[in-house]
Amino acid sequence: MTPPLQVDLNCDMGESYGAYQLGHDAAILPFVTSANIACGFHAGDPAVMKKTVRLCLQHNVAIGAHPGLPDLVGFGRREMAVSPEEAFDMVVYQLGALAGFVASEGGTLHHLKPHGALYNMAAVNAALAEAIAEALHRVNPELVLYGLAGSELIRAGQKLGLRTAQEVFADRTYQPNGTLTSRRLPQALITDPNEAIRQVVRMVKEGKVRTLPGEDLAIQADTVCIHGDGAHALAFAQQINQVLADEGVVLEAALLTKPV
Amino acid sequence: MTPPLQVDLNCDMGESYGAYQLGHDAAILPFVTSANIACGFHAGDPAVMKKTVRLCLQHNVAIGAHPGLPDLVGFGRREMAVSPEEAFDMVVYQLGALAGFVASEGGTLHHLKPHGALYNMAAVNAALAEAIAEALHRVNPELVLYGLAGSELIRAGQKLGLRTAQEVFADRTYQPNGTLTSRRLPQALITDPNEAIRQVVRMVKEGKVRTLPGEDLAIQADTVCIHGDGAHALAFAQQINQVLADEGVVLEAALLTKPV
Amino acid sequence: MTPPLQVDLNCDMGESYGAYQLGHDAAILPFVTSANIACGFHAGDPAVMKKTVRLCLQHNVAIGAHPGLPDLVGFGRREMAVSPEEAFDMVVYQLGALAGFVASEGGTLHHLKPHGALYNMAAVNAALAEAIAEALHRVNPELVLYGLAGSELIRAGQKLGLRTAQEVFADRTYQPNGTLTSRRLPQALITDPNEAIRQVVRMVKEGKVRTLPGEDLAIQADTVCIHGDGAHALAFAQQINQVLADEGVVLEAALLTKPV
Amino acid sequence: MTPPLQVDLNCDMGESYGAYQLGHDAAILPFVTSANIACGFHAGDPAVMKKTVRLCLQHNVAIGAHPGLPDLVGFGRREMAVSPEEAFDMVVYQLGALAGFVASEGGTLHHLKPHGALYNMAAVNAALAEAIAEALHRVNPELVLYGLAGSELIRAGQKLGLRTAQEVFADRTYQPNGTLTSRRLPQALITDPNEAIRQVVRMVKEGKVRTLPGEDLAIQADTVCIHGDGAHALAFAQQINQVLADEGVVLEAALLTKPV
Repeated sequence: MTPPLQVDLNCDMGESYGAYQLGHDAAILPFVTSANIACGFHAGDPAVMKKTVRLCLQHNVAIGAHPGLPDLVGFGRREMAVSPEEAFDMVVYQLGALAGFVASEGGTLHHLKPHGALYNMAAVNAALAEAIAEALHRVNPELVLYGLAGSELIRAGQKLGLRTAQEVFADRTYQPNGTLTSRRLPQALITDPNEAIRQVVRMVKEGKVRTLPGEDLAIQADTVCIHGDGAHALAFAQQINQVLADEGVVLEAALLTKPV
Repeated sequence: MTPPLQVDLNCDMGESYGAYQLGHDAAILPFVTSANIACGFHAGDPAVMKKTVRLCLQHNVAIGAHPGLPDLVGFGRREMAVSPEEAFDMVVYQLGALAGFVASEGGTLHHLKPHGALYNMAAVNAALAEAIAEALHRVNPELVLYGLAGSELIRAGQKLGLRTAQEVFADRTYQPNGTLTSRRLPQALITDPNEAIRQVVRMVKEGKVRTLPGEDLAIQADTVCIHGDGAHALAFAQQINQVLADEGVVLEAALLTKPV
Repeated sequence: MTPPLQVDLNCDMGESYGAYQLGHDAAILPFVTSANIACGFHAGDPAVMKKTVRLCLQHNVAIGAHPGLPDLVGFGRREMAVSPEEAFDMVVYQLGALAGFVASEGGTLHHLKPHGALYNMAAVNAALAEAIAEALHRVNPELVLYGLAGSELIRAGQKLGLRTAQEVFADRTYQPNGTLTSRRLPQALITDPNEAIRQVVRMVKEGKVRTLPGEDLAIQADTVCIHGDGAHALAFAQQINQVLADEGVVLEAALLTKPV
Repeated sequence: MTPPLQVDLNCDMGESYGAYQLGHDAAILPFVTSANIACGFHAGDPAVMKKTVRLCLQHNVAIGAHPGLPDLVGFGRREMAVSPEEAFDMVVYQLGALAGFVASEGGTLHHLKPHGALYNMAAVNAALAEAIAEALHRVNPELVLYGLAGSELIRAGQKLGLRTAQEVFADRTYQPNGTLTSRRLPQALITDPNEAIRQVVRMVKEGKVRTLPGEDLAIQADTVCIHGDGAHALAFAQQINQVLADEGVVLEAALLTKPV
């Protein structure tokens, strides 16, 4: 008998900062299985990090570090010419900081997913990807590395023997080489929620995605990125959670159980 | 037979930042037994933290976190009206960040000592002191808490069952209540190195210090603060190290060995 | 014939930052006569500053600099032990930065009002107040200095010959010495909007305020602080604007016309 | 009679920050004619800016704003994907902030030169260059725009009718298209001071530079960049100042006198 299909629904969380509120963490948490918590460089502050870790523990959602570039005003979305060693250093720092709160709240850290421009650069830049994977490996080789499905970051993690989770997107279109269509192009986003959900279900159940030019591409969908802000974020999270459950897919944080 | 007297010599380290160099860490390290490494809020950046952890491991010097107020331009020396909870949060964050580098470099974290205005406020403000001790206790109760001898911070640590190291100063004069004479007063500093060394030797060997008004005060000297910058820092570190060794005092990081 | 009574309604604006939105600037602007624009230290970023200056020019609202302490995570509300010279420097810097955008957008700068903890400290600390007034005087002595009615900041401005605007609060209770009742005390806030409006009307028309113990106190009300966030901010701004107009009070930025 | 040749010697200044000292401003100032003062984003803090403006006024050195990317830890040397509008905003902010200190100290602002990665990006990216030139033009069209000789930044300034100063480098080699040889290549730097000085003298007197492949290139040398840090900075500044004076070249800030 084949084991049931399973997938992780992850969401960026803890993006508030001081007096500034962002996102709807408490509302989204019941519908996801893992959370990527901002670590203070592009968003998040120590108080927000502690509060978000507590929320995740209350909802039994797996906790991940979500390190970003040191660019609060740009929300970590502007590429910066950081060296691999600088990337290593900023990942160790932010991963450690979040691990501090996970320890103080009595939880367990589960994974790491880079944020924004750091995520995008690590998807295509092998040296940067290897530095990030190396940072994770040296701090705690038990943690799961989340990265764009088929990216350099996934390859870098696999090379080091890390457990990796390949991430797919519900509302983004794909290019034939497996990259996401750039947001600067008109057809980058899938705006119809039903179409977005159909794309996810197919990626999870068939391991395939229809690329923008119309050909199918093999893709591994270990974890699906759910957006936590925007007007329809909550409704979409509920809907995708429901549809996947109806399809018999088990929703569980990626590789929550270590292989025996 | 009584065990030999022993004391720790600690020094603030890793205070450089980006293009900015501060201190003479590599030169001072051979003469101290523990280092307090800045964690990015008042000084230090991820690259500096990693490098300083490595230096400490090479010199077999015990590594401590040195969290400060979020005030880089003021070097963490300006008091800020932070709440106990904010102090808890900033200590967990910085402690975790440094622990990240200690893990990535294969070392062991030994202690925590607050920096500058946070240290001074925690010496007299019980609520702040308890928040800082609680942060340490929740992240890792094995770590040693360094604080001003006889201060609220030491009391807070003892209340939680933490191991504490009472810190004394070679070049500062003491008030009858055990506090340091304020730097704003003319006789705050002991400028004669020989007098500074005599003060330390007496604190270590006799457990007493002559206060500014001339009376003796009982003081516990577990660790002596050595300054790492200034023109004569290195010469003084060498000298105090030598004199204490000549007096038969064992130089070792505070409570390096856990009591059995 | 006596000239008609007039008063200024001022509101803090431009407090968003990067991806973070705060306040309802565009909605409030039609009901106020002057705006205090955050300058990047406690809130605001260059893009927000430019946009807010443009909004003020569109609504013909007088533009003021709103410098704060360098504490984004604390929103400039935590007191810091800054020296008078440090206060001078941070005011010149932020005032200049805002003046840059006023120049680039073709407007005229009108006033300066310190923010949060800097405002509160300057109300009672004469040396700090004088440093802030001196900063304004040296950069542009034509600008109006806004400060708490009867405070050290107003006195410092008057001593230098600056034009000053004494600020009163609608929703705060007063102590017999003219200070606001601390927010830590239970009766600090006036939560009934009608009572708040009555207090303002009386301050403007009679120059008096009933203090918390029940005695009247003389007070000069040149400008009224309107809060721009909170659920009822907009409704209250509309209401106070309407009531004052109905009472025959001319609403105009403080000292908009220089005395001849 | 032809007017005597003249050139400006400019140097980056005011790069200290809080407790961190960088550069030898007071020692270099007697040998240069204009200073580019850091404005707080990549280096410099308000206290340092004020002090540096005062030093320039004492030495009668023309004062320029030296805005950089918001990257203190990277000293503004790491390229960031900022949009032209973001560049406009950060230039207006920093230019205004420095103008605040020039006003408070009773001086006159003379020019603007972008720093580090912002300078390099503006040399080749026309949209970014136009945004920076536009920022200067809107804040104060009398100011001189400094940029790499022959660069997009110079072209953008000329298009807006700004006065521009074309900058040349003593110790860098040139490519046939007028760009500097990348520091990543082995022959980027001219390490022999005499050769560096010969290159400057020829650029100033003949308007030519020998490119790396050996061909001559026409170049306009309005201002020469002098480095303020490094072991030999002071000696080199003295030497180039002396040699140019001996050659009959008048040393004066670029376009100090407006054309009549």
